[in-house]
Amino acid sequence: MLKVVLLGGGNVAYHLTNVLLHNSDVKVVQVYNRSIQKIQYLATDTTITNRISELKEADIYIIAVSDNAIYELSNKLPFKNKFIVHTSGAVDMETLSSENRKGVFYLLQSFSRNRTIDFSTIPICIEAENKKDLALLKKMAISISTSCVEMDSNQRKNLHIAAVFVNNFVNHLYHTAQNICSSNDISFEILRPLILETASKLETLSPLDAQTGPAKRNDTKTIKAHLSALSKTQQKIYSALTTSILKTYEKKL
Amino acid sequence: MLKVVLLGGGNVAYHLTNVLLHNSDVKVVQVYNRSIQKIQYLATDTTITNRISELKEADIYIIAVSDNAIYELSNKLPFKNKFIVHTSGAVDMETLSSENRKGVFYLLQSFSRNRTIDFSTIPICIEAENKKDLALLKKMAISISTSCVEMDSNQRKNLHIAAVFVNNFVNHLYHTAQNICSSNDISFEILRPLILETASKLETLSPLDAQTGPAKRNDTKTIKAHLSALSKTQQKIYSALTTSILKTYEKKL
Repeated sequence: MLKVVLLGGGNVAYHLTNVLLHNSDVKVVQVYNRSIQKIQYLATDTTITNRISELKEADIYIIAVSDNAIYELSNKLPFKNKFIVHTSGAVDMETLSSENRKGVFYLLQSFSRNRTIDFSTIPICIEAENKKDLALLKKMAISISTSCVEMDSNQRKNLHIAAVFVNNFVNHLYHTAQNICSSNDISFEILRPLILETASKLETLSPLDAQTGPAKRNDTKTIKAHLSALSKTQQKIYSALTTSILKTYEKKL
Repeated sequence: MLKVVLLGGGNVAYHLTNVLLHNSDVKVVQVYNRSIQKIQYLATDTTITNRISELKEADIYIIAVSDNAIYELSNKLPFKNKFIVHTSGAVDMETLSSENRKGVFYLLQSFSRNRTIDFSTIPICIEAENKKDLALLKKMAISISTSCVEMDSNQRKNLHIAAVFVNNFVNHLYHTAQNICSSNDISFEILRPLILETASKLETLSPLDAQTGPAKRNDTKTIKAHLSALSKTQQKIYSALTTSILKTYEKKL
């Protein structure tokens, strides 16, 4: 059985700890967090600590903290030549301290505290310095998901950018639409079937073929009318995306 | 039974004709299109014509043509005081010729020719000049969908803008992500669970609460790294959306 120590108390750490605690191939021997309060709820399931000097023996140490804190935490670890991975899409594997063996275990999903996630479909992108460690990560990955992909740091960084587009930015477009609805006394609920269909369409059509709307049709009259109804910030989003759609289909305003 | 004449040969006309032909409350007595070839496939199911002078008697005439063609076509109709509706989100009801009674039958969904749509969940936004005609539209709407909403032209125009955000723009973000993936030898398939989860999340969380990512965290280091990896057109999309997210959560770059 793989012995794992998890370091972190954020959304990724929360969900990953939870799925690993219920995994028969993995034993979570300890969870570390700077603030012990945040991981107190785990005290009945595993050992918890807020002292870096008291980390237990494990096969894999998973650093699931914010991007900016990875370097510092990996340099504080009080041992050498153990296997340390981080869970970030945006951070190079090389950012980890060279005192230990490095790896990455990136879960390609958006985690919110109050939303249960089906881990079995989450693509897990793994990277390691050597084959033996990569095999360890693969073992852990396939014990929780059906989708495990080897990827180097540069690919993962670009995948993370793509994920920002399809998740962070898409979600903000939902938010913008909700604002437009509420300003006009329209229930946002009415957009739900369209939102789901837009995502589901990709099962049968490429985004290039699925595109519809005023920009695709180069319908300048509608585009102008839309712009005049929007706030400055909304206009900038509208213009940037419309320009890009026009370019994609080789049309000009 | 409601007698309906459909005018148009595009995606909306195609799907709407198809669903009305299989509806026991409605009889499609005729389909008109400028080009007869485009509607030839309907010849076995209903009467087809490309002559505006030969339009048959009906309770509702549905103009399902491109936004720019609605005004002209409604003015060409060779009769008076009949009930004419268009199917556009962006066009005022008043754009229709005043020779006839006016109405709108707007299907809030994105139609692609090669994609079958479940009409029963499509919100149908209706508008008419008088209550009797509105009742006719309601009868037709609830015969094909569980979701029928009365809405004036201004609300519908704003709803259409919101739909552009959650459908046209979201789909273009998918396309942009696909470009980023293919430039880095990554399968776009890997993003599918994230895309579906982003849409499904709205079942339990508002977009405001569901937001994650570098802009929400004000992670300037990652934002800069992302921008440097993007093309000029992609940068403009990234910046406009990032600025808007930062504003939403009252953060500054």
